[in-house]
Amino acid sequence: MNQKLKVSIVGASGYAGGELLRILLFHPKVEVHQVTSLDFIDQPVSRVHPNLRGITNLTFSKTQDLTPCDILFITIPNGKSMTLMNQLIKIAPRIIDSGADFRLNSAKEWQKWYGNKHQAPELINKFVYGIPELRKEEIKKANYVAGPGCEAIVSILSLWPLIKNGVIEKERIIIDAKMGSSQSGSSPKLSTHHPERRGVVRSYMPTGHRHTAEVEQELTVGNLKPEVFISATAIEMVRGLLVTIQAFLKQNLGEKEIWKIYREEYKNEPFIRIVKEYQGIYRYPEPKILQGTNFCEVGFEKDNSSNRLVIIGAVDNLVKGTAGNSVQCMNLMAGFPETLGLEFPGLHPV
Amino acid sequence: MNQKLKVSIVGASGYAGGELLRILLFHPKVEVHQVTSLDFIDQPVSRVHPNLRGITNLTFSKTQDLTPCDILFITIPNGKSMTLMNQLIKIAPRIIDSGADFRLNSAKEWQKWYGNKHQAPELINKFVYGIPELRKEEIKKANYVAGPGCEAIVSILSLWPLIKNGVIEKERIIIDAKMGSSQSGSSPKLSTHHPERRGVVRSYMPTGHRHTAEVEQELTVGNLKPEVFISATAIEMVRGLLVTIQAFLKQNLGEKEIWKIYREEYKNEPFIRIVKEYQGIYRYPEPKILQGTNFCEVGFEKDNSSNRLVIIGAVDNLVKGTAGNSVQCMNLMAGFPETLGLEFPGLHPV
Amino acid sequence: MNQKLKVSIVGASGYAGGELLRILLFHPKVEVHQVTSLDFIDQPVSRVHPNLRGITNLTFSKTQDLTPCDILFITIPNGKSMTLMNQLIKIAPRIIDSGADFRLNSAKEWQKWYGNKHQAPELINKFVYGIPELRKEEIKKANYVAGPGCEAIVSILSLWPLIKNGVIEKERIIIDAKMGSSQSGSSPKLSTHHPERRGVVRSYMPTGHRHTAEVEQELTVGNLKPEVFISATAIEMVRGLLVTIQAFLKQNLGEKEIWKIYREEYKNEPFIRIVKEYQGIYRYPEPKILQGTNFCEVGFEKDNSSNRLVIIGAVDNLVKGTAGNSVQCMNLMAGFPETLGLEFPGLHPV
Amino acid sequence: MNQKLKVSIVGASGYAGGELLRILLFHPKVEVHQVTSLDFIDQPVSRVHPNLRGITNLTFSKTQDLTPCDILFITIPNGKSMTLMNQLIKIAPRIIDSGADFRLNSAKEWQKWYGNKHQAPELINKFVYGIPELRKEEIKKANYVAGPGCEAIVSILSLWPLIKNGVIEKERIIIDAKMGSSQSGSSPKLSTHHPERRGVVRSYMPTGHRHTAEVEQELTVGNLKPEVFISATAIEMVRGLLVTIQAFLKQNLGEKEIWKIYREEYKNEPFIRIVKEYQGIYRYPEPKILQGTNFCEVGFEKDNSSNRLVIIGAVDNLVKGTAGNSVQCMNLMAGFPETLGLEFPGLHPV
Repeated sequence: MNQKLKVSIVGASGYAGGELLRILLFHPKVEVHQVTSLDFIDQPVSRVHPNLRGITNLTFSKTQDLTPCDILFITIPNGKSMTLMNQLIKIAPRIIDSGADFRLNSAKEWQKWYGNKHQAPELINKFVYGIPELRKEEIKKANYVAGPGCEAIVSILSLWPLIKNGVIEKERIIIDAKMGSSQSGSSPKLSTHHPERRGVVRSYMPTGHRHTAEVEQELTVGNLKPEVFISATAIEMVRGLLVTIQAFLKQNLGEKEIWKIYREEYKNEPFIRIVKEYQGIYRYPEPKILQGTNFCEVGFEKDNSSNRLVIIGAVDNLVKGTAGNSVQCMNLMAGFPETLGLEFPGLHPV
Repeated sequence: MNQKLKVSIVGASGYAGGELLRILLFHPKVEVHQVTSLDFIDQPVSRVHPNLRGITNLTFSKTQDLTPCDILFITIPNGKSMTLMNQLIKIAPRIIDSGADFRLNSAKEWQKWYGNKHQAPELINKFVYGIPELRKEEIKKANYVAGPGCEAIVSILSLWPLIKNGVIEKERIIIDAKMGSSQSGSSPKLSTHHPERRGVVRSYMPTGHRHTAEVEQELTVGNLKPEVFISATAIEMVRGLLVTIQAFLKQNLGEKEIWKIYREEYKNEPFIRIVKEYQGIYRYPEPKILQGTNFCEVGFEKDNSSNRLVIIGAVDNLVKGTAGNSVQCMNLMAGFPETLGLEFPGLHPV
Repeated sequence: MNQKLKVSIVGASGYAGGELLRILLFHPKVEVHQVTSLDFIDQPVSRVHPNLRGITNLTFSKTQDLTPCDILFITIPNGKSMTLMNQLIKIAPRIIDSGADFRLNSAKEWQKWYGNKHQAPELINKFVYGIPELRKEEIKKANYVAGPGCEAIVSILSLWPLIKNGVIEKERIIIDAKMGSSQSGSSPKLSTHHPERRGVVRSYMPTGHRHTAEVEQELTVGNLKPEVFISATAIEMVRGLLVTIQAFLKQNLGEKEIWKIYREEYKNEPFIRIVKEYQGIYRYPEPKILQGTNFCEVGFEKDNSSNRLVIIGAVDNLVKGTAGNSVQCMNLMAGFPETLGLEFPGLHPV
Repeated sequence: MNQKLKVSIVGASGYAGGELLRILLFHPKVEVHQVTSLDFIDQPVSRVHPNLRGITNLTFSKTQDLTPCDILFITIPNGKSMTLMNQLIKIAPRIIDSGADFRLNSAKEWQKWYGNKHQAPELINKFVYGIPELRKEEIKKANYVAGPGCEAIVSILSLWPLIKNGVIEKERIIIDAKMGSSQSGSSPKLSTHHPERRGVVRSYMPTGHRHTAEVEQELTVGNLKPEVFISATAIEMVRGLLVTIQAFLKQNLGEKEIWKIYREEYKNEPFIRIVKEYQGIYRYPEPKILQGTNFCEVGFEKDNSSNRLVIIGAVDNLVKGTAGNSVQCMNLMAGFPETLGLEFPGLHPV
């Protein structure tokens, strides 16, 4: 049978929701059924997402007006989906939640990092953490997927092959994240007011970044939980995210050996590019050219005079960092080719 | 038969050539055969266009090594293709030249605006000026198409319905063009050095803009040649082009009547969007959200207190302004659906 | 006696007020007495203007707590100062109002352009329109000065020598203004939210720009009122303003003659730079390098093939466009050297 | 006697040289005597530095035409001044070299980091490393000063109080530097071509940064040389430099105690601002508002859940990072007030 999947999006007026919509409207196996919003009910989606003018006539619905569909995507602020989830699972047999509410394996960890009590702890273990490159088989079989945080996914993908192979020290892994303004969401505030935000190098979160919890959880091998420290700095960029990671090799491996470790792990992954060039000007991962794409670029440089290894990862925070990765998960769950609808290669120059 | 068109690109290491390559590599009816470059012979295209990493293994060839193909795209600096054209037409039965050499109907006009003698005047009349919205039937039958200049195409599309319907004065039409840095080409110079170029509002060409000739030529109806004045200013932007046009209505038409004129002319055009909103923040054409798309957005505002009409047009200079429009022409020439390979809707936010 | 002038600022938490403060705190003949704000009462000014950290311990006061001073600067939203002015003139014998309320000579014109009835029509004629280059002697003697709008001052300074000498047609003078985000004020809204505002080329006000009234008023010579049309476009810039003006010469003057007209008018003006270079990359006025300075740069290019003259003017909208020009007026009113406190030359690169 | 110091600049057409010129032309105790350039001999300085139009009539001289002066500033590429120094010391009794050639205490270290043999090893020990906050008394008495690298000065100033007081571990101090394009110098190349450079987050130097040598040298206390690792990333910015430093406290100090350590060290330093706010949007050091100023801002955040301390430092790389710091050194050497000519407070917004 050639029927299309019927999908809906809860929270489609935000940036991640708009990006989901952009991708899903062109996905050949999907029909977008309903999209909801709190603030723009009954308004055309193209008023909020002007790139979709002439492409869709959809208008925003209320969440309470959702009717059954095959897959429900959720892109609403952290802490909201756990209060709605017991209702939402009645709408659709499969759910992909981009928010943080079901990423952590324990309600206790949630409370530690997000500060309030989890509202649906009984559902936590039904969700699979949605990084296809690490949990492909689980996702294929999953009904509920929790999409990772954008800093988390790029950090995990950058570190996973090294952690899995036990070649770096697991203490004091330091992640310096450079982020764009789209990560702050779609609501204006003084800190995102253009005259104040343009050109900043703003120490947004020097310590205490909540994605730390996910990164440590997913990089735990056996009982060995790594110690990860994130500092996040907001820079002049709308889309894009780059992490510069400092790790220390247990043994003094050469760059070729490190290359092999990455290669081995990711050689069949369609959305991972290992980037380490000795010529040209794009020698390391670069978010600039990843805008709109589902790629995660990973590169590294070994310090000649020590065991330090600098690992660099880049994504578009709204695509591989959120919406694109969710569609990749959907493709796996639905048995579609993993890359379907995610072929856009990005622009140069831009 | 389901065979793909074999196409090659002369000058694929420049920005317009790279953009052609991006589009053609994903075009379902096309196979990219060869791409040439002067400076990067035998190097992988992804070194120059890092967005194509992992997407193609093509390397750059020499122009003299071109072998026959079905359609040849040419994206080389102005004044070069006329010296090569008599050779190039032996390579392919159909040619789409993005440069200026065959845009003007007369060798005399060429010399007036470009300063040197035309080198292949005998071929000039074989080329059709390639704006599908104005010359669709001619392009379908053409073997040789001259792609318009980017300021020209957006200005012509913005003005054509008004000129055709004779509603604006044909004298002193003023076009203020705001342009990005990708229009300066891919070779670094002091004026494009980032510390000098970033954040400029640089009066790049207050008078004497060469695209004037094309605009006046294509907007001539009967014997009535309009008088067009262009001033071009470089602003902080890589991709994108906006024109703010000042024209005067012969009669005091209202905005509804002007809307109808545009609507009537463009209602079946898949790549024209008439943009004039009374709500939201994207009320007029906006190049920011057109990056990577083949849309031309056109809007207008009538001055309440005079007969002045301000018309606004926007394109991505490398897509509808060059490469995308060339592919649109190819689609027409080959009998493909006009929008094939050009569906990318653009990003928001970006 | 060497006592310093005691000055206060009404509305110092906005961008123009903050810029006044920056300049006045370093002015050798001035002591900043009080600064007011609606939203930040009792807070340190450096919380709002972080460049003033460690430079001043001033905190914001309420307007009603103002005590007498020598000169009062007013930088509050249009339409507010006319409701307060009868009180404010009791605070200080001299007032410099940056807003629009007292710029126009007639209450009727005010109502036409600003939409509501003027609240203090009896005071209108007490204010001198504050462009020192045009009204130096009047300003020296003035007690009340109305600072010009930023688009108005740069347009007037660009056109004045040509209008005064009667060399351009007075009909259909077209001004294309490119503006930065600081002109939108200091309050965040969706249109200034960084992900939406960054990189726009937004047709902010294609017709109906209120500064038209001032420009026409100030450029009226005898009974000859020129006809001026402004279109304003917001671009990627925080500070800075450039106007590209299209005018038509009555007689076919050469560039040398035009140069002489500007030279003659402005040769003794310390803040006007005539910029027209045939070498280098900064050949015309450029707001990028004027950030923080009180200069107005003016340049022009004559069209070779017509009588069209393109005139280009640039300022920092917050300095010569507002705060710096107000200080220049104060210097004249107080008998100080005209350039005192306004010597900052700007940065390169930036 | 009230005579002004006669100063000259070797290499004034570069960015650091232009910045020196901007500052020195307005310094009340200095007269700029000669400025040299390789590429712009006999041309007016304002062609290269357009901010100086109308401010100076100086033209560039050849280095060999230098005549005696009181202080000679040198801002030429690394590796050049050591070949000229034996001549240059005949021109002036006092020299301030902004380049790297005389920063390191040993010719061997130079060769290790810069790859070639030092050409004037006999002069190395005559130079004082020029950070006034660390070596004020030495600089006052010095004839020859080597100005620090821009990453070095901001890193050293950020770390010095902690190192001096022995509160952080001296191993594995990690510095993540975010840099602007002006650091790449004034010569255009592909990597600085605006379409390629705009919006990058480019891993410029993940390991092997030469400023490491200076930082380790200057932070050595007794025999204890710290181990410093720098990774540098180029971001969308022209001027400005921010370092995010990861260090680990030996004991679990609170933020108040750390504040006291900084306060104690820097309380009398006019150019150090300790920035750590709990309100407002500029809570940490921010290069955006430091453009054109000689301030170094230093801030920090203690990780609640570990001994990690994140230290943040910001400067304008061309002012406190180079030219302004050199003038500060000159003021000390000449017995002028330390802040003379360096009062510009920076702009907000910008």
